[in-house]
Amino acid sequence: MLLEGEAIDKIPGSDLEIIQNRGKFSYGIDAILLSEFAKSKGEVVDLGTGTGIILMRILARQNIKRGYGIEVQTSVAEMAKRSISHNNIDNIEIINEDLNNLENIFKKHSIDTVVSNPPYMKNDGIINKDENLALSRHEILCSIEDIARVSSYLLKPLGKLYLVHRPDRLVDIIYQLREHGLEAKRLRMVQPKINRAPNLILIEAVKGGKSEIRVEKPLIVYNERDEYTQEIMNIYYGRC
Amino acid sequence: MLLEGEAIDKIPGSDLEIIQNRGKFSYGIDAILLSEFAKSKGEVVDLGTGTGIILMRILARQNIKRGYGIEVQTSVAEMAKRSISHNNIDNIEIINEDLNNLENIFKKHSIDTVVSNPPYMKNDGIINKDENLALSRHEILCSIEDIARVSSYLLKPLGKLYLVHRPDRLVDIIYQLREHGLEAKRLRMVQPKINRAPNLILIEAVKGGKSEIRVEKPLIVYNERDEYTQEIMNIYYGRC
Repeated sequence: MLLEGEAIDKIPGSDLEIIQNRGKFSYGIDAILLSEFAKSKGEVVDLGTGTGIILMRILARQNIKRGYGIEVQTSVAEMAKRSISHNNIDNIEIINEDLNNLENIFKKHSIDTVVSNPPYMKNDGIINKDENLALSRHEILCSIEDIARVSSYLLKPLGKLYLVHRPDRLVDIIYQLREHGLEAKRLRMVQPKINRAPNLILIEAVKGGKSEIRVEKPLIVYNERDEYTQEIMNIYYGRC
Repeated sequence: MLLEGEAIDKIPGSDLEIIQNRGKFSYGIDAILLSEFAKSKGEVVDLGTGTGIILMRILARQNIKRGYGIEVQTSVAEMAKRSISHNNIDNIEIINEDLNNLENIFKKHSIDTVVSNPPYMKNDGIINKDENLALSRHEILCSIEDIARVSSYLLKPLGKLYLVHRPDRLVDIIYQLREHGLEAKRLRMVQPKINRAPNLILIEAVKGGKSEIRVEKPLIVYNERDEYTQEIMNIYYGRC
């Protein structure tokens, strides 16, 4: 069941296990934070699901009906499928498809929640030679505009989109969302430490939402002793 | 020189004095923070100058050539003019005009820096009965879209706009700026305390700037003992 370089790890805060390729293709804190920030319900689509960590953790910790993980890279999608089988999960489906080809798979305005931890880096030509890593980290097959357009197609009125991204793309994200009828309604900055600039942002957008965003207090990752803060410990391991 | 209810106060961090009507029309911490956040040069326009505090403080602490304070309310503009005279300042001009009528006063793309501490509240019908207060606090004569459009008219290429506003308008601001060719490039959230959500935002936008914003670490106003933090003390009273 495991390919070379793969290992099975426990998903923190759940009884599930996940297959990942450490170093090459494994989840980070951004996926854990997004899985907790995303108040999910009904049918949930994860755009660029990777290992499947976000959907699996949402399934374990929230009350959803069904999850669909979209992953364009066949080998990564296969790995996610093996994780789903390994846990005997019957209501998450991994779909090996480009997110720009979802019109034949999902009805327009049929989904309750969309989540995405998209590639962070602009497609500026300086890309990783490993094709899997390049596609996962750079906006080659998945731009912010793609995420906004596809989410707008998928979501029901007042359906919610949850994103994690880098602070330097805040304007692009907010602008593209509104261009596609999705209004950013909640924003939380994630700071590595209390006196440092944020290095991640968590955004909730509402399909057809009215303008006005709630900016929450920052989420601090490490305390002065370089340990996880209590809030991070609660997100990772706390009950939900 | 003073009208009923007015007083003369020292402008912190400068040798200048300002006339204000305490309670009715006086500056707040937002004006002080903006005057420090706004790295100004050349000719500076302040849209909705009020008491004139921002321009006067920028003049005292930064190297600018000339300031123009636009104020639509005649009685408020008169008060600002008296402050300018009182300090014998000869390179700040208060212009009693609606900011939407500046085409005959300023040449297109002629200004280096625009600053504004605009009304924070949407024009939703629930407005203050005192006309001065209503115009200063509500977007009756000065919407975010007005600020973006007029700033775009005034600013030279790569000229800078500095705004202070409420976090809940972040999306409206960022969106309107980009719609008018102004790209938000720097953002600082202001939190009343370290574990509280921000209640002010400081934004720098660049005319014709490329996309990508730098989100700085939050500015914290009060420490655990409810005293100003060292950074706030430096902003108020420090040398520049």
